[in-house]
Amino acid sequence: MPAPIINKICILGLGLIGGSLAAAARKRGLVAEIQGWGRRETTLARGVELGYIDGYSLDLAGAIEGADLLLIGTPTLIAEDVLARLHQVLGDGPMPVITDVASVKGNLQRKAESLWGSMPAKLVLGHPIAGSEQSGVEAARDTLFVDHRVILTPCAQTDADALAMVRSLWSGVGADVVEMPVSDHDEILAATSHLPHALAYTLVDTLAGKQSSQDIFRFAAGGFRDFTRIASSDPTMWHDISLANRDALLAVIDDFSGNLARLREAIAVGDSQSIIELYEGAKAARDRFSSQYAAVASADE
Amino acid sequence: MPAPIINKICILGLGLIGGSLAAAARKRGLVAEIQGWGRRETTLARGVELGYIDGYSLDLAGAIEGADLLLIGTPTLIAEDVLARLHQVLGDGPMPVITDVASVKGNLQRKAESLWGSMPAKLVLGHPIAGSEQSGVEAARDTLFVDHRVILTPCAQTDADALAMVRSLWSGVGADVVEMPVSDHDEILAATSHLPHALAYTLVDTLAGKQSSQDIFRFAAGGFRDFTRIASSDPTMWHDISLANRDALLAVIDDFSGNLARLREAIAVGDSQSIIELYEGAKAARDRFSSQYAAVASADE
Repeated sequence: MPAPIINKICILGLGLIGGSLAAAARKRGLVAEIQGWGRRETTLARGVELGYIDGYSLDLAGAIEGADLLLIGTPTLIAEDVLARLHQVLGDGPMPVITDVASVKGNLQRKAESLWGSMPAKLVLGHPIAGSEQSGVEAARDTLFVDHRVILTPCAQTDADALAMVRSLWSGVGADVVEMPVSDHDEILAATSHLPHALAYTLVDTLAGKQSSQDIFRFAAGGFRDFTRIASSDPTMWHDISLANRDALLAVIDDFSGNLARLREAIAVGDSQSIIELYEGAKAARDRFSSQYAAVASADE
Repeated sequence: MPAPIINKICILGLGLIGGSLAAAARKRGLVAEIQGWGRRETTLARGVELGYIDGYSLDLAGAIEGADLLLIGTPTLIAEDVLARLHQVLGDGPMPVITDVASVKGNLQRKAESLWGSMPAKLVLGHPIAGSEQSGVEAARDTLFVDHRVILTPCAQTDADALAMVRSLWSGVGADVVEMPVSDHDEILAATSHLPHALAYTLVDTLAGKQSSQDIFRFAAGGFRDFTRIASSDPTMWHDISLANRDALLAVIDDFSGNLARLREAIAVGDSQSIIELYEGAKAARDRFSSQYAAVASADE
């Protein structure tokens, strides 16, 4: 096994993502020591039992002592709180490299700017595109990031060595690391992930609100099951994401609503050409996506 | 093998559904003779080769000669044309039992009423809820309907023996047959199938229209793939369904759009309670559907 590339990291919040990263970094010998911090001792103790982390502390200052890299593994809004607690512990003194895995980046950038006055050079916001309907450390696996994209969103003041360290960790566990501005990340995720969740929740809500909803669900088939699977996602997590990425999400909801209104009008007046053009264009784009996706992420099944 | 329950049937349009029904009826010995009719001789010849049908004719009058049951196996709008051709061949004289498998029932009822003056007693409109992304006789399989629902939509003037014959055929191939009025069928399918297709097409169209669509699709993950799978469905078929079920589809698009506008407003003003209530209600309904679906349709995978 090669020499570790990082001496000590601390995972703040040991869920599916943090647990999987710890497991993968451990298995590949990327890190000499991995500590954990979180609210629930049972989770952290389980992380030690599973061999993902070497130890843990419920005290933040103690847990991050001597760490080269802190990885905030919590969901969106809790990550804001963790940033605030880190600011409290670290003050305006020297800080280790800090990164995260949350689904929205703009809210964390704004939070960091308000805490530190400007984006800290060693804070490298990131987001692995490796969702799962499962959650929690029990669902962690060391292959979760293989051939999956990880988006890092450095800005002008980001420290080059800090960025290199975060990049090397993700590359080391098999991910395909790309960089883009925070605003691009948030717009892309609003379109490909946050909007589809909003639509799936709204569709199921619409059907459940009908008098005959028992019957309606009774006659739903496989297409409906696939289409609405994401409506079984965690409501609190998606509430937080919806608010954290409000502006980008509202913009793409408006785009979508405008296009749906146009389709509605075409159906109402029997404008076959517009309907066919929309459906054919969408099918062509979906088929292209499908073949790209199959090529890059066969490990996702 | 038990004695056949029907002497002779003729499949008008030998695609996935017609081919699968012929294959299943043949395998279970439900029918003594199965003939085929369609536009493409190669398809019909292939049906004979695969052992699904005994013979075929490209001439409608010849194909249906002596048949006890005609099954229209074509998609929505073509089924209207087939009804018109049958009316031409049969005139106002005696008719065999006729049924179909198309996704919308109201348009066919209206077509039949305009052709015959009122709904013929022997016309039993039906719809097996057994979609597949595949199509064509090559994709047919004799297990397609096992534990899947088939909806029949008899009306006041429907002949009891005709209904019993159609029912026995579907039950015989393993389906769970239920009856409901045409309008209920069309509303339920608008909600569970036609609306989701319209939303999936519109979502992909929205994303494909963005300047950065290459990037957007590049960062889409598994949830997006599932959510948009139905946008790879046949555009012409879904154009036809959208127009054939126009009224029910417009009504449910309006319900959905109203609910989406309310969610948009809740996100815009940061109304956490409304967002959480919507997401939690939808998750609960989706989870209930999921367990029901798993119970009745494990053969669908």
